[in-house]
Parts: sequence; structure tokens; C-alpha cells
Amino acid sequence: MSDNLSPLAPSQSPILPDIAGVTCRVARARYKEWDRCDLTFVELAENTVVAGVLTKSKCPSPEVEYCRAALNGGKARGLVVNAGNANAFTGARGMAAVEKIVSLASAHLGCSETEIFVSSTGVIGVPLPQDKAEAGLKSVFEAQPCSWEDAAATIMTTDTFPKLASATAVVGGKTVHLSGIIKGSGMIAPDMATMLGYIFTDATVDARFLQQMLSAAKAKSFNCITVDSDTSTSDTVLAFATGQSKAPALTSFDDDGADAFQAALSDLCMQLAHLVVRDGEGASKFIEIAVTGADSDDSAKRIALSIANSPLVKTAIAGEDANWGRVVMAVGKAGEPADRDSLAISFGGVTVARDGLVVPDYDEAPVAAHLKGSEIDIAVDIGLGEGKAKVWTCDLTHGYININADYRS
Amino acid sequence: MSDNLSPLAPSQSPILPDIAGVTCRVARARYKEWDRCDLTFVELAENTVVAGVLTKSKCPSPEVEYCRAALNGGKARGLVVNAGNANAFTGARGMAAVEKIVSLASAHLGCSETEIFVSSTGVIGVPLPQDKAEAGLKSVFEAQPCSWEDAAATIMTTDTFPKLASATAVVGGKTVHLSGIIKGSGMIAPDMATMLGYIFTDATVDARFLQQMLSAAKAKSFNCITVDSDTSTSDTVLAFATGQSKAPALTSFDDDGADAFQAALSDLCMQLAHLVVRDGEGASKFIEIAVTGADSDDSAKRIALSIANSPLVKTAIAGEDANWGRVVMAVGKAGEPADRDSLAISFGGVTVARDGLVVPDYDEAPVAAHLKGSEIDIAVDIGLGEGKAKVWTCDLTHGYININADYRS
Repeated sequence: MSDNLSPLAPSQSPILPDIAGVTCRVARARYKEWDRCDLTFVELAENTVVAGVLTKSKCPSPEVEYCRAALNGGKARGLVVNAGNANAFTGARGMAAVEKIVSLASAHLGCSETEIFVSSTGVIGVPLPQDKAEAGLKSVFEAQPCSWEDAAATIMTTDTFPKLASATAVVGGKTVHLSGIIKGSGMIAPDMATMLGYIFTDATVDARFLQQMLSAAKAKSFNCITVDSDTSTSDTVLAFATGQSKAPALTSFDDDGADAFQAALSDLCMQLAHLVVRDGEGASKFIEIAVTGADSDDSAKRIALSIANSPLVKTAIAGEDANWGRVVMAVGKAGEPADRDSLAISFGGVTVARDGLVVPDYDEAPVAAHLKGSEIDIAVDIGLGEGKAKVWTCDLTHGYININADYRS
Repeated sequence: MSDNLSPLAPSQSPILPDIAGVTCRVARARYKEWDRCDLTFVELAENTVVAGVLTKSKCPSPEVEYCRAALNGGKARGLVVNAGNANAFTGARGMAAVEKIVSLASAHLGCSETEIFVSSTGVIGVPLPQDKAEAGLKSVFEAQPCSWEDAAATIMTTDTFPKLASATAVVGGKTVHLSGIIKGSGMIAPDMATMLGYIFTDATVDARFLQQMLSAAKAKSFNCITVDSDTSTSDTVLAFATGQSKAPALTSFDDDGADAFQAALSDLCMQLAHLVVRDGEGASKFIEIAVTGADSDDSAKRIALSIANSPLVKTAIAGEDANWGRVVMAVGKAGEPADRDSLAISFGGVTVARDGLVVPDYDEAPVAAHLKGSEIDIAVDIGLGEGKAKVWTCDLTHGYININADYRS
């Protein structure tokens, strides 16, 4: 954890409701030379179902490969998250460490090995030490239940604040609850899901339907954020439904309350995704990029991500410079249909350029004032069609260089 | 021009040979508030042929659109390069400025308008002031011929040193000469050519054959470098052949000396491309990334560029950290065929990881010593096929943030 709290951090962490059937515990496995909890163990009630979205990296961690296989079972009893060591690119020893953790946790809970899920985050290339994992698990099995905030803090690496969010939905006249925690700060350009995120609900949901809803939610949230265009080998978001509420089961969108549940899940994913951007390494500005008028929604998203990933756009915002020329550059390099002379660009709702050139009598003062704030809006209308998309990113500052030029050492 | 010379700059500029039929002149148009030459005019002998490669940006500058059309004629008598203002995204006024320049230069030389080529580089979004262009042209038409170095210095913007290179080839028993100048430092991820580069030769070459050879040369040079993954709206490389040598004409690879000319042209393009990387904004390390064993050459190039564009790899090198885990990450996100457990990675010729994990008894000392230098070699073997590629980039440092967080102001 950094000593420097992100200036974009929420003023306080929200209080999340308990989720019946979910118990969190944390302990010190000391995966790094630090004195903080770094092992999280979540016990889930019997009959909990699970869905997940995982990195599309061609070089995923053993944990990602393991979870991908275990998700086929659709059931979960336990989750283990290790912080400080990603256990990625560690060959057979990496997978052996995962198998050891799964063996110990399933024995402790008396469940099938496929009902245990494991994630690890931190440095790549160093096998997770099995002795530390084993001692940590023994300790965490005996630990007292902890708060959501403690669990959210324990999964952190370069994060500067714990990230938590919640939502509710009414299903069949009963309120169901969703609580989520997430970590992530750098290596953020998810191509499936982002970093490590865990969502828990007391709703009763068919596993395949939960997967369908989670995939829909991540397309507009986790897959619409970027900090630095780099995609982690460990990206994982898992959603667990304990079925402990009194609400009727959800199996399809024909069920009463399914739309409300999807809305709540999507809202929760968006909250969590935005928290990751707010803790982007070195971030001083939270930037929303809205693209309209593109050839299609997919085209709009690619243009928006081209803008969001441009180092020149991100440094301009860091410098509070309304350098809309760099936005034009990023639209141009996206490779998507665009017509220079139909573009319109605004900052903070003030149109800066239209029809391919700066607006007549452009007054930079309100734009400059907007850029001095910490919440920046960039809107680009391509002027061709109906496609639209929104993505979120942060600026690129000296802080990013500071953090990443000496992270490992 | 920056006051801070890149630490990767050559110790001195090479002396380039004159090219018969080429005369350079420079003048002060004062496109910005500076007291330096910023307008370059190159007069070319009658019967000079031209080829060119231009940005693939969907939002190109009027100069790029103009050159693309003029290249159809295949003939050139004059080149005008404006520095300090890119004249991009300036609507009809931008094109009017280009037309004004073309009109004045063609009248001066008594040639067709399609034989004049124009480039502009600098800030995007501000129409090139026609009055300054006109006064500058009047001044430059009367100026004394200047050196290659003066011309190379006059086309610079954020560059810290003038970039020149030369090559020779023997064609039909006669030596032909090639001299080139280039500028570029940021917004470098060419998708066709890089920034502004001009190559002059006294060889006699058919225009279509020159185009074929230039396109082949740029594929392995300008299109294999990246500073910051951003692609300029103005990228242009033009090659002019005056036909003033005594060597026989080249019309195809069947001609004696054509292979030698292609080799010389490719070598010159590579020299110029590397000079751009050596002046990358904020660069402190010149990085060669060699990928072998990929599914195809194209696949190897995409993987190599994914590594070269990764902010996390570039900051690790800036921090002199042999963080090969970030290289794995960048391979994984490239989306190309790769098998985590077949990868091998080396720094400075020392294998760090093989078969999906760190090598036994890895000794970091020689790798750390290599990383303290300014010429960094990263080699990645994918272990799948015969595809290979090399690309070149620089590290990502505080200098890049310094330059780009307040460039426009």
C-alpha cells in the first residue's frame, strides 16, 4: 500500500451490508517483507453458485487457468486471495502452489476441490512460496471474521485505498443485497475483467444466468476502463450468489426482478470499475470520455479507448491543457471510420472544435477552469452515425513514473 | 528545440555529401514566438521523381492530403517544410494555406503546382498563418543555399538534435549518393511513415520503382519504431531522385545495381528511424526488442510492438529493473499465439527466463549491469514457429511527462 492516498479517493469508505452466507477472514502470510494482512479467505454457504470473467491474456497465471476450469462446476464454497505475489509465469511450481491451497481449503471446508477459487496478485515471475501459503491458511482458518473493509484492504497491492461498493435490488418483493470488493491500480486495461474483484450476493441465481448477467455488466464497466493500456495476466472478477435471501430464484430475464438484479449488478460493477480508475497509479484527474456519432457502438468504444490510452492526451490533462489537437490525433489513429471535418470536441460541456476546426471566438477560460478540477469530461462527436460509448481513465503523471520505475525493487 | 540534448544523441552530426540537383535554403517565418529558422525550401532539378509514404491517420493534415494527391504525378521540383505549426485540423483555412504555398513556390520555380510538396509540423489545430508563410517564402527564395545540417535543424520541433544520415550504392559501375534528414521525437508510432523525413538521391529511378523500394524500406524501419504509441496526423516521408548522377536508370530489380540501391535506401531509412528513437521525448535508453519463434513475421512484429508500447516495460527499463514479468504481460496482451510455458526472455544476451519460469540459479548481476547502460537489448523467443521481427523504442521517463504536460503553453 502506498503512503500517498490518491487525491481521487472517496472521502470515506461506504459501509457494506453483510451478505448472508459469506464470511471473510484475513491473516498475515507475509508474501513480501511487510507487516500487514495479505491473505484473504472467504467462506461461502453450501449451494453458493459462482460466475466469473477472466483475463484474455495469452500468458495467464495458474490461478486464472485453475479458476477457468473450476467455473465449469458453477459452485463455490471458498475463495482464497493472496496479495504481494501474482504467482504468474512460474511454471509447474506455480500450479503446484495453487493445488496446495485448493487441497488445504477444501479439506478445511469439507467440500469438493472444484468449489475452491484462488487468486494471487503482485509481482510476476516468483513462485508463490507454499510454506508461507500453508502457514497463512492455518492462521486464517482460525481467525475471527473480519469486516468488508479489512478484506478489501487485504487484497491490495499498489492500491492506495480499499475499494468497496454495494447495491440492492427487489426480487419477488424481497430485497437482495450485493456487496463487492476490488483491487487494481496499474496494469489496467482489462480485456475481459479487471484485476481482482469479488462480488457477493444473497440472491438465488442460476449459475449460467449469473454468468450471463456478469458478462453483460463487465462489458460496460470493467472493459471500459484503462489506466495504462497494460493488461494483467491475473485479471479476475468472480460473482458469488449464496441464495440465503428469501427472494425467489432467478433463472432468466423472464423472472420477476431479474431486470432489477441485472441493473444492480451493473451498477455495482460500474462503481467498482470507477474506484479502480480513481486509484490509477499516479492519477490526479478522473477522466470520462464519451464518444457519440460513431459508425457503431463498437467503433465508438475503440475510438474512446484510443483517446483514453493516448499518452499525449493523458499528459495534456495532467498539465491542465485543453489540447484538443491531441484528441484529434487519437481519433485519427484509432483506425475507425472518422471524418476530420465532421468532428466536434468538447471539454466540460464547452464545445472547443466543430466541423473540423476550432469554434469561432473560442473562449478558453471556462475550459481552463474545468481542467483545473479533478473530474474531467471529454466528449467527442464523430458526426457519422449513432454509435456511442463511454470509457473512463486517469491522467498520466510523474507519480506513474515514480511508482513503476522502481516497483519491483 | 529543447535546451536538453538527448543523452542518446550521436556525439557529432555526420557530414553528408551534396546531392546533385538538390539545393536547400532556410529562413525565418516565425510561425512561433522564436528567433530561429523554421521554413525550409528545397529546390530540385528538372526531371526529379518522387515517392512517398504518409500517415494512415483518419484525421490527416491538409499537407498529407495534398501530398497524397501530388504523388500521383511522380514528379517534383520543390519541397516546403514549415516547423512550429502542423496546420492539422484547421478546416478549409488549413488547405487554403497549403494552396497559397504551392502557388507561390510553383510560380517561383516556373513548374506545375503538382511538382511542389509541402509539410508542416508542430501544434495541431491552429491554421498556418498565410501572411507569415508568404513573407517566409519571399525571404527563403532569396536566401543563400544552406548545409544539410541547417536544413535538418530547421525542420525540428521538440527534437533536441538535427538528424541526418547518408548512404551510397554502386549502380552500373557508378556510385550514387543518398542523403536524408528527418525530424520526430514524440507522437511516434508510425502507421505508414514517421513524422517528417526527406531523402534525396542523385540516382535515376523510375517513380513507381522508387515507391516500391521506399515502401519496402519503411516496413522494416519507420514502421518498426515507437516512442509513445501515438501516431501523428502529419507523418510523411518523401524520397526524391534527381537523376543527376551518371549511373544508368533503375526501373526494376532486374537492373544492375537495383539490389544495392534498395540496400542503401533501407540502410538510410533505418539510420533515420533510429535517430528518431534516440531523440524520443525524455528518452534515456535506446531499446532494441527482438522477437523470434513467433507464428509469423507479422505476429512477431505485433508482439514486439506490444512490448515496445507497454508503459510498464518502458518504466521498468527507465528504472534499470530487469522486470521480465512485465515482458510476459506484454506478450500475453498482444493477442497473438503464445504459450506461456514455451517463452524465453533475455536481457543483454543473458537468458533470464526459459520454459515458462526463471532460469535455475539466475544471476541478476550481469543483467543489472547491462540495464545500467544506454543501449538495451531485449530478446523474446516465443517457441512456436519461425516468425521474427525487430523493433526499437526508448524508455518512459519523467522527461516525457515534463515535455508533454506543458508542450502547447
